[in-house]
Amino acid sequence: MQWKVLGLVAVALSISGATAMADESNLRIAIHGGAGTILRENLTPELEQAYRAKLEEALRAGYTVLTSGGTAVEAVQEAIVTMEDSPLFNAGKGAVFTHHKTNEMDASIMEGATLNAGAAAGVSTVRNPIRLAAAVMTQSSHVMLSGKGAEQFAASVGLQIVDPAYFWTERRWQQLLEVQKNDPQASVLSEHESDRAAVVPGGTRWPDDNKFGTVGAVALDKHGNLAAGTSTGGMTNKKYGRIGDSPVIGAGTYADNSAGAISATGHGEFFIRAAVAHDICARTLYRGVSLQKAADEVIMDKLVKMGGEGGIVGLDPAGNVVFSFNSTGMYRGFIDSTGKAHTAIFR
Amino acid sequence: MQWKVLGLVAVALSISGATAMADESNLRIAIHGGAGTILRENLTPELEQAYRAKLEEALRAGYTVLTSGGTAVEAVQEAIVTMEDSPLFNAGKGAVFTHHKTNEMDASIMEGATLNAGAAAGVSTVRNPIRLAAAVMTQSSHVMLSGKGAEQFAASVGLQIVDPAYFWTERRWQQLLEVQKNDPQASVLSEHESDRAAVVPGGTRWPDDNKFGTVGAVALDKHGNLAAGTSTGGMTNKKYGRIGDSPVIGAGTYADNSAGAISATGHGEFFIRAAVAHDICARTLYRGVSLQKAADEVIMDKLVKMGGEGGIVGLDPAGNVVFSFNSTGMYRGFIDSTGKAHTAIFR
Repeated sequence: MQWKVLGLVAVALSISGATAMADESNLRIAIHGGAGTILRENLTPELEQAYRAKLEEALRAGYTVLTSGGTAVEAVQEAIVTMEDSPLFNAGKGAVFTHHKTNEMDASIMEGATLNAGAAAGVSTVRNPIRLAAAVMTQSSHVMLSGKGAEQFAASVGLQIVDPAYFWTERRWQQLLEVQKNDPQASVLSEHESDRAAVVPGGTRWPDDNKFGTVGAVALDKHGNLAAGTSTGGMTNKKYGRIGDSPVIGAGTYADNSAGAISATGHGEFFIRAAVAHDICARTLYRGVSLQKAADEVIMDKLVKMGGEGGIVGLDPAGNVVFSFNSTGMYRGFIDSTGKAHTAIFR
Repeated sequence: MQWKVLGLVAVALSISGATAMADESNLRIAIHGGAGTILRENLTPELEQAYRAKLEEALRAGYTVLTSGGTAVEAVQEAIVTMEDSPLFNAGKGAVFTHHKTNEMDASIMEGATLNAGAAAGVSTVRNPIRLAAAVMTQSSHVMLSGKGAEQFAASVGLQIVDPAYFWTERRWQQLLEVQKNDPQASVLSEHESDRAAVVPGGTRWPDDNKFGTVGAVALDKHGNLAAGTSTGGMTNKKYGRIGDSPVIGAGTYADNSAGAISATGHGEFFIRAAVAHDICARTLYRGVSLQKAADEVIMDKLVKMGGEGGIVGLDPAGNVVFSFNSTGMYRGFIDSTGKAHTAIFR
């Protein structure tokens, strides 16, 4: 599940010209835009192109931070903000609706050098939840804030607050109506229900990312520091203030310079129970296996046995990009050592 | 930090009489009632006796479940409910106040055989948050619920709902006023502030458990299954919907039959960043060290270097009881293989 990453070939100068820094080949960013039952027959060529273009835009946004000398934490934020501001992904602007017809978003971020972390759960008025997670990390003494309190904190540190209506999109609204029509009590979609929800009235066919359409990024900066971040709208029709794995440090997000950086996407309940992001790092740290092998053990074996669908994107301290997912597809991409962007969706 | 646990001496019959089951020597329960700057000079003999008596009562409540053939999950609940119903501990009845003069409680529980887990964050009307965590685990498709939604779920499954005033206690109220008088903006107490807060006007001196007074339990049942649970009122004067480690699976609570069961108490932000409960299990699982050694590595070394104060109670699959804490004290206790209860507070 891993693209062959080019070695530390010193071709960065030939691509970026005279302003390139000598160590650009060590910079790396990788992202995901959610995993799920993403089938080629459910994705028109136009929509596939739109996803790929937005993934590349997100990669470029993060990579530009890195080549400008910015930190991995900053790069992760910029990549995720690009996806949060797009209606294509289940995060920020494109967040799914809850059972109560609201949008409640979660996000987290972690810095591998310090194990500093920040997270927010259940916010409805913060345009970019990943920026809130970062502000919690750097401007509060806490790691995890929730609900109205988290929104008050966001306002207090000057983050952009929007009317909740900003998050209304026709696609997500129709998905909610479709799910509630079929099962008004459902707060988790069965496979069958999510298949029905994938066809929006009017004929537009969308891939099944109303369950697992979380976005995430991992980055390695010029200081050799790793970071990981994750942002999501959660599950369509969720209720009871459900919190998934995305804002849970150790489940949806973990970064430790001595092991790796991981951002997950999938059926959050399973990812919390398996402590996916931390478990992958722990296997690497304590057993000496590669981050790719550790990720495959957790995603392709442990989670499969538990019945948990989804995947991760990761980076090890040497800049090796890791993808692992047990679903039929995962929106994903990375920038290699030459500065070239790669994107993919299907297995 | 570990009491010498008696081996599997078959003396259970001589203690419990004819109704005792043959495998009682394999049953085990251990608890904590919070860690912190608990100094002998801050605890009157009467108060020390009250804490020890309540710890033993909690141990007996859990152990009775085990000797009656109940599960580790049930035993953990009963032990924790006993502490939640006491004003002595920062959980349930004795929960500390938030900045906004409310009580917002968190709890989680996990079953080692299945990795099933449940958690609730920020509830103000549920008498026993640990029962809510258990209900989330067994009666919902989710792992983590929060705020008003979690309270609605609690009511929907018939848990006892109380007026928020139920959680008002003079001691916690005075602690809040003291903290806010000294620093109305503080949402985390410094060591200095917490020392001041430890003296309640009127002369009653309480130990410093307004920061770390979480309660927790771990148990091993007749099926050889482990469970862990944790419940807390969080930090005095907390704001912004702060969530600590107690409801975070992997941080405050983790149980895996192949590794151990852990419940943590301490400065939650550090426990989340270090993924304390899961990290202890992972070190045992992947490096083969004992749960005690793994716990000491995390609590006495890793956390100390990070600046994180607190401790854990744990049980390994063979029933060995583990305590590890880097604070001056931790309310704690366990029942050994002969059915005898042991309690302690200071180092």
